[in-house]
Amino acid sequence: MIKAAVVGYGNIGSYVLEALREAPDFEIAGVVRRDCSNIPDELKAYKVTNDLSQLDADVAILCTPTRKVEEYALKALALGMNTVDSFDIHTGIVALRRSLDKKARECGKVSIISAGWDPGSDSVVRTLLQACAPKGITYTNFGPGMSMGHTVAVKAIKGVKAALSMTIPLGTGIHRRMVYVELHEGYNLTEVAQKIKTDPYFVNDETHVIQVNSVDEVKDMGHGVNMVRKGVSGKTQNQRFDFNMSINNPALTAQMLVNVARASMKQQPGAYTMVEIPVIDLLPGDREELIAHLV
Amino acid sequence: MIKAAVVGYGNIGSYVLEALREAPDFEIAGVVRRDCSNIPDELKAYKVTNDLSQLDADVAILCTPTRKVEEYALKALALGMNTVDSFDIHTGIVALRRSLDKKARECGKVSIISAGWDPGSDSVVRTLLQACAPKGITYTNFGPGMSMGHTVAVKAIKGVKAALSMTIPLGTGIHRRMVYVELHEGYNLTEVAQKIKTDPYFVNDETHVIQVNSVDEVKDMGHGVNMVRKGVSGKTQNQRFDFNMSINNPALTAQMLVNVARASMKQQPGAYTMVEIPVIDLLPGDREELIAHLV
Repeated sequence: MIKAAVVGYGNIGSYVLEALREAPDFEIAGVVRRDCSNIPDELKAYKVTNDLSQLDADVAILCTPTRKVEEYALKALALGMNTVDSFDIHTGIVALRRSLDKKARECGKVSIISAGWDPGSDSVVRTLLQACAPKGITYTNFGPGMSMGHTVAVKAIKGVKAALSMTIPLGTGIHRRMVYVELHEGYNLTEVAQKIKTDPYFVNDETHVIQVNSVDEVKDMGHGVNMVRKGVSGKTQNQRFDFNMSINNPALTAQMLVNVARASMKQQPGAYTMVEIPVIDLLPGDREELIAHLV
Repeated sequence: MIKAAVVGYGNIGSYVLEALREAPDFEIAGVVRRDCSNIPDELKAYKVTNDLSQLDADVAILCTPTRKVEEYALKALALGMNTVDSFDIHTGIVALRRSLDKKARECGKVSIISAGWDPGSDSVVRTLLQACAPKGITYTNFGPGMSMGHTVAVKAIKGVKAALSMTIPLGTGIHRRMVYVELHEGYNLTEVAQKIKTDPYFVNDETHVIQVNSVDEVKDMGHGVNMVRKGVSGKTQNQRFDFNMSINNPALTAQMLVNVARASMKQQPGAYTMVEIPVIDLLPGDREELIAHLV
């Protein structure tokens, strides 16, 4: 059995715990939380601590905010644990990989980074489609679904009490943003909407801001992807591919984190993105049986 | 540059030659044909031989009939070349992998087997979807498109002059077979149709046999796949995925063979299916640049 520590117990952390319980090859070494004074019922069966070094784990599954991933990963590697994360700032992936690769090699451990669905499983499909038809363009269309990053950006604007930013795909990688806000008293929708539309997160997209009485009532964690490629295999034009999914966002992210935690036990020391590990390593079970069923 | 030998110059072989010419990192070591007396124009620039040992190649791309793959692969490995093939008898993959794995390790070389689109790129998607939602069923629906295996089976029936067996997807992995035949004089459609429908290739499927004046006029090498999975991530039900492609069959097979020929240069000695190699190894170029663009 692989001993996994869950680091951070927010939305993703709680889905990771569910996925670990369903996996046939994991045991739960414990959960790391900042605040250990108020432990929810479903954690009472597990060791809960604010100090990762108190846990005996093979792999630390990092469910912290993305900007905290590097700090926690370096700490876990130094403690002799593999790490996995769903770091999702696309422009920061190469730098994070370099930093964790160095530390992982020093410690003889493995880090698998940016392992959710995008970046993550989508990255594997995107890379495969590029190989299927090397010349051409891949469009990744997101949604309809809630964008975490955009929602956080709206919440940071003065006067916003609660927010939800939905991503609506318009095709060819172009998206509309539908922003639902609850305002604090005394704030004006027109002014808040103006601030949202000029925020760097929104300034390039068609954005609509709608005031609602309760953001909670319109919130849904479903999400979707439609990835399309039309390209050339060899000299043959017009090869067409598309990949679609309609999913619960944190549930798929959590499942992928558990899969790469498993895969981390099979790699040489270093840091990897999901496109750098064989997909078969994501699954439990005998290799020849998997090949016989899946290839 | 990777030096590649093309072994066999039928339909797949000629598309492989095109894909090699388009690839930025390959040179063509030569082409192996049984009959070297009548060389087509497009091969005149290359060394053509009936003896693989005459070629100086890093990797042999096997474009022979599936049943000849093992024999040619063992020969190429013994000559110190990596091998790649698109062996497509699903029930024979594990045995071929064992046989070539042993030989490849002895020779310090790499074989990547069953690398077309199914088995091949579809296998990668199938494995990834199984990881995304571990509980559930994946249906692979083929077509509409020409089935090589079924067409060959029809051609073997007495009285059949030419044949084309089209696979039509009916969903949930169920297929209809539409068989177009040209008959030799003196043969009766009803009798031939009866023989086709009771052949092991057709006996389990809804099969329609249609007589045409010219099979050549209805022949199209386009094919398609629709792969569907609905399953459970962690404890979350109803996660939905589908993957579709509409492709020229030999062109995609050939492109994948070239991709895995490239990937063979980066693996440890042994035999692999496509699900056992990182997808990034299918592509040319700098690893960090690929990660920055694709992950």
